[in-house]
Amino acid sequence: MALAVLPVLPETLYPAAAQTVAPGDPLPSWNDGAAKQSIVNFVTAVTREGSPDFVPAPQRIATFDNDGTLWVEQPLPVQLYFALDRMKAMAPLHPEWKDTQPFKAMLEGDMKTLAESGEHGLVELVMATHAGMTTEEFEKIVMDWLATARHPKFKRPFTDLVYQPMLELLAYLRANSFKTFVVSGGGIEFMRPWMEKVYGIPPEQVVGSSIKTKFQMRDGRPELFRLPEVNFNDDKAGKPVGINEYIGRRPIAAFGNSDGDLEMLQWTTMSGAARFGLIVHHTDAEREYAYDRNVSLGRLDKALDAAAMNKWTVVDMKNDWKVVFSFEKR
Amino acid sequence: MALAVLPVLPETLYPAAAQTVAPGDPLPSWNDGAAKQSIVNFVTAVTREGSPDFVPAPQRIATFDNDGTLWVEQPLPVQLYFALDRMKAMAPLHPEWKDTQPFKAMLEGDMKTLAESGEHGLVELVMATHAGMTTEEFEKIVMDWLATARHPKFKRPFTDLVYQPMLELLAYLRANSFKTFVVSGGGIEFMRPWMEKVYGIPPEQVVGSSIKTKFQMRDGRPELFRLPEVNFNDDKAGKPVGINEYIGRRPIAAFGNSDGDLEMLQWTTMSGAARFGLIVHHTDAEREYAYDRNVSLGRLDKALDAAAMNKWTVVDMKNDWKVVFSFEKR
Repeated sequence: MALAVLPVLPETLYPAAAQTVAPGDPLPSWNDGAAKQSIVNFVTAVTREGSPDFVPAPQRIATFDNDGTLWVEQPLPVQLYFALDRMKAMAPLHPEWKDTQPFKAMLEGDMKTLAESGEHGLVELVMATHAGMTTEEFEKIVMDWLATARHPKFKRPFTDLVYQPMLELLAYLRANSFKTFVVSGGGIEFMRPWMEKVYGIPPEQVVGSSIKTKFQMRDGRPELFRLPEVNFNDDKAGKPVGINEYIGRRPIAAFGNSDGDLEMLQWTTMSGAARFGLIVHHTDAEREYAYDRNVSLGRLDKALDAAAMNKWTVVDMKNDWKVVFSFEKR
Repeated sequence: MALAVLPVLPETLYPAAAQTVAPGDPLPSWNDGAAKQSIVNFVTAVTREGSPDFVPAPQRIATFDNDGTLWVEQPLPVQLYFALDRMKAMAPLHPEWKDTQPFKAMLEGDMKTLAESGEHGLVELVMATHAGMTTEEFEKIVMDWLATARHPKFKRPFTDLVYQPMLELLAYLRANSFKTFVVSGGGIEFMRPWMEKVYGIPPEQVVGSSIKTKFQMRDGRPELFRLPEVNFNDDKAGKPVGINEYIGRRPIAAFGNSDGDLEMLQWTTMSGAARFGLIVHHTDAEREYAYDRNVSLGRLDKALDAAAMNKWTVVDMKNDWKVVFSFEKR
């Protein structure tokens, strides 16, 4: 779990940027096959004037999970590495963490005990490390961390470990007048600072979990202060709730990879009209990771069963993707 | 307080639509004067390449209050008429309302007692009338009501009573690559169904107060059910919080008309850069209403004092606007 910390030039943080669609194949990193064909068929059906499934452009809302759908989430979700590094930086001010769970387990890298602390434990970690500063200060902390943190296996910045085929898919949808949103269980203010450059998705199109903030004047200047109190949990049945609250339209296409995306996929596709659901199935132990029912964070179990029932597209990462990460294309 | 209920053809609901900017004067319903000039000066300063105040297009976020800023809010905010009509329709099922405050006051049109019930009383009214159905059902209730309800003074649909000069301002900003948002204390799901057609503002750019919803499957179909529980109060110090949560960027221009907009105007303008704040001052008892410090709902008091201190533009409705309502332009 140790993270190598190396200096990088800031510009290398954003290798991928918003893709433009190639004049020929809009999805060059996808192998020809059922998954790619299903995407093209759907986009053609909803965008061709006169098609029985035509959807006017303003209603072409597409929602994407982030962890495991747009970027790597193993061996642990990226935000947990961030929380750990924050804890290490803050530990001298909190000697009690050495003897208190879940802080002790986190600092010792004891993932088993940490997992046993459940959602309540994770919330405690987030509160301790993500609150107590202004929104501006938090954004700087996130960006400084991303500039130096490295993935334990790939030894690269986490923003390098975004899926090239998904970047192409985002660009392909936008070229067809879709509005692309992230709808993630991750922290909304952990995601917004970098997604515009990495995914081409602006802050106002990012939905996520959040803590409460409070408006206050300090020294005659207004600020928003981050409080140690959960505001919204954008996971599982929270995803349709978040979509309705933040976007206010029902998506016509949704993209996920785990049981946390099940309700979003149901809400999107079970509307009686031509809709599209897709699950990224991590089947590539060599180039990335292979996991589904056998992991606790990022588990794909019920949603995989539901995919068959609901005719959602299941991407077989190993066979459907020519390349996995954006850095491979450089 | 009685509302005339007349049938109308559905298409008359949307007279205004998204304006296009006239080739000559982009703000033809504004008289020449300091207010109009300040708007044009600001837009020119932030959009001209090479200007010291230049702001890149994606950061050109403008937020607008709704009640009293984009449409009429006197003698009562529109949503209160909606709540009253809902109560009347539901009253046979709630005989206890005849003897229980604030329901009794509302049904009897006793605005004094209603006002005394304060925010708590208003929340109770909203819970009783806005919850207990799916989001789809609620949208239909709102649209059916808007099709028949009439303003007590102007005898017109409320969607006719939007301010023509503000429609031109919205269009002028969008023509200069601003993204326009509504940030209102009104109910988010009361506003979203009609704002795209009336203001040119899509649902995903509407921020407002909300109640909680719950995702559930019913007869094999997913739905969002509206619960009698406050989720977010998008007023006063809640407005910067809502802007940060839903939009995730700090606006560069904000438009309001009452003390409910004070913190939004502070958050927007007190950033150290060239920013714009504007207050619509209702000074026209003849064509609309004249009010500021003398009303309880829609009071303009502290924000009027702050306008002078912070150099916000104050629109004198009587002298700055050639026409008030969109229907006058037809």
